[in-house]
Amino acid sequence: MPPRFTDLVKTLPESVPFVGPETHERQRGKPFIARIGANESVFGPSPKAVKAMCAAAEDVWKYCDAESYELKHALAAHHDVAAENIVIGEGIDGLLGLVVRMLVEQADTVITSAGAYPTFNYHVTGFGGELIKVPYAGDYEDPDALLDAARAHDAKLVYIANPDNPMGTAHNADVIARMIAESPENTVLCLDEAYAEFADPDIAPPLDTNVPNVIRFRTFSKAYGMAGARIGYAIASPELARAFDKVRNHFGVNKIAQEGARAALEDQAYLADVQANVIAARARIKAIAADNGLSVVPSQTNFVAVDCGRDGDFAKRVLSHLVEQGVFVRMPGVPPLDRCIRVSAGTDADLDAFAAELPKALYAAADPG
Amino acid sequence: MPPRFTDLVKTLPESVPFVGPETHERQRGKPFIARIGANESVFGPSPKAVKAMCAAAEDVWKYCDAESYELKHALAAHHDVAAENIVIGEGIDGLLGLVVRMLVEQADTVITSAGAYPTFNYHVTGFGGELIKVPYAGDYEDPDALLDAARAHDAKLVYIANPDNPMGTAHNADVIARMIAESPENTVLCLDEAYAEFADPDIAPPLDTNVPNVIRFRTFSKAYGMAGARIGYAIASPELARAFDKVRNHFGVNKIAQEGARAALEDQAYLADVQANVIAARARIKAIAADNGLSVVPSQTNFVAVDCGRDGDFAKRVLSHLVEQGVFVRMPGVPPLDRCIRVSAGTDADLDAFAAELPKALYAAADPG
Repeated sequence: MPPRFTDLVKTLPESVPFVGPETHERQRGKPFIARIGANESVFGPSPKAVKAMCAAAEDVWKYCDAESYELKHALAAHHDVAAENIVIGEGIDGLLGLVVRMLVEQADTVITSAGAYPTFNYHVTGFGGELIKVPYAGDYEDPDALLDAARAHDAKLVYIANPDNPMGTAHNADVIARMIAESPENTVLCLDEAYAEFADPDIAPPLDTNVPNVIRFRTFSKAYGMAGARIGYAIASPELARAFDKVRNHFGVNKIAQEGARAALEDQAYLADVQANVIAARARIKAIAADNGLSVVPSQTNFVAVDCGRDGDFAKRVLSHLVEQGVFVRMPGVPPLDRCIRVSAGTDADLDAFAAELPKALYAAADPG
Repeated sequence: MPPRFTDLVKTLPESVPFVGPETHERQRGKPFIARIGANESVFGPSPKAVKAMCAAAEDVWKYCDAESYELKHALAAHHDVAAENIVIGEGIDGLLGLVVRMLVEQADTVITSAGAYPTFNYHVTGFGGELIKVPYAGDYEDPDALLDAARAHDAKLVYIANPDNPMGTAHNADVIARMIAESPENTVLCLDEAYAEFADPDIAPPLDTNVPNVIRFRTFSKAYGMAGARIGYAIASPELARAFDKVRNHFGVNKIAQEGARAALEDQAYLADVQANVIAARARIKAIAADNGLSVVPSQTNFVAVDCGRDGDFAKRVLSHLVEQGVFVRMPGVPPLDRCIRVSAGTDADLDAFAAELPKALYAAADPG
């Protein structure tokens, strides 16, 4: 007799929101020549963060500080909020899972955009929520449509990423500020700012930690180059932040990540270098696209959506050929966004490989026979 | 208006299963002189594991391998089971949370022992389960009482740790094998073997991965000295192991921990040194207790329950004085186990401090005025 799983768990697929590059590599039987598909920061973490993580490795026999006290206070100072407004977690993925668990029970409604972050959807489905997806407006998530749906369905949660993933676009701060102001008070607005450090400073509205129904997510996975360390944070009202203590894995944020994050945050000069590298890489991806007669979606992130100029089937073939040729990229999952492939900011060598392989992939994709 | 938390979450306290030593230190305003309260391995991780973690820190810009392929296969070879029997997770704490989530919904019954691992209870309560606690039989968890309760309450889950925490005792393999054989097929037996590497080899029954309703938990937090890295694993039938893919945070096991764990597993010579150090430390704790007229509970773990010879109030005063004097220890939470304080295997310096402070703590505790 199989274990008596809950009724909900019985309905869930054994799914993964993304196939990881290592899985592709095992299937291919050889490593990628360019790993520019997961919006990782190929420029790596600050050397000071690496040093802090090595030092922490010696000390890793100790459990982490369950309160993440030092990091929490450093982040509070950095953002000019109180420590009680900060929640440290195992990346934004981990924090999104917790916020969904706290708010969503079976048949509760959650609003997101069709084509937006799949891991958020994985969590909502995993806790029995009903996802309602609204279309993008062009290459932008549509705040008005999201709020209309939240009102119409009395949603517990509404999700938006600014800057957006997978398209890389961003709304200006006033648009997001208006969205915050107009969110139904019964709905918690999840504002995913994973890519904020790559964007123009004027896209993020000021942090107002008195608003009870907004939670903003930041991470060390992207601009700080620490995706594998699994550490991110949320900024919220004290009440919402405190509620995480009801459900979080209190000793779950690993010690090496906590120490590394603190050192990374202190090294803002290194962050500035990464930001400059990303701006240069975005320009190069645009130029490579143009060399192939393709346009790009203007990006405020560390990736660029390259418009392959035809439909989703064509872009999918381009992507398959690139992956086969050793260039790991990904693409949006729904039309019309899926006319694009999504290319992360790479090193010069990564983008040399992309430049060399893209024409072949386009040629092969044009002739599916 | 506060966020609309789920009905279950509204009932949960903002609790933490344990107060961490860093929290105590901040309250005291100074560091502990001996950190021997959380059953961490003061002997640290293998130097080869530290080296692997440092190397991984350079590469931490990459997300982890979501399948933990290399580590999973290394563990499968180590235990002579198939990779499909292994689940890698964020420590046993993380894995326990997932197994509870998969099996327990509101009003489902779960069986454990009164005084056993609080974090398991935290997860059960967190998912709405009803805990039924059976007493220890002396200083041992009571397999028959646990199974009787599982049958009587049609329990979804029954939890036992072998060796036990907080008492340090262990049943022989035949007792646990009989418990596995006699577990109701409707009940999943959670066998927590976090301390197995410190015990006599004959306490763990052979791994039989055909049994659908048993899941065994191991960790790199204890004997491998990597508590702060947050990595552990479960061994189960392929069906139960696969079910984790429905709910786990697929990219959640940090890359540094995966690399460190692999190197730690390979360095069995270092593990043997740690095991010898722990045996010596247990003997020394016993001798220190004897010097103070106290006895100990025979231990199969990296900690020793020191019987303070009176009731729980007395032991609690002893513990408070020790903590105040700079020696971090913990104690069981329920009578009659709470006549003991729980002292982790320490370095010579740690146990020198314990030897110096215990008599003062006993003296102060004897005169509460």
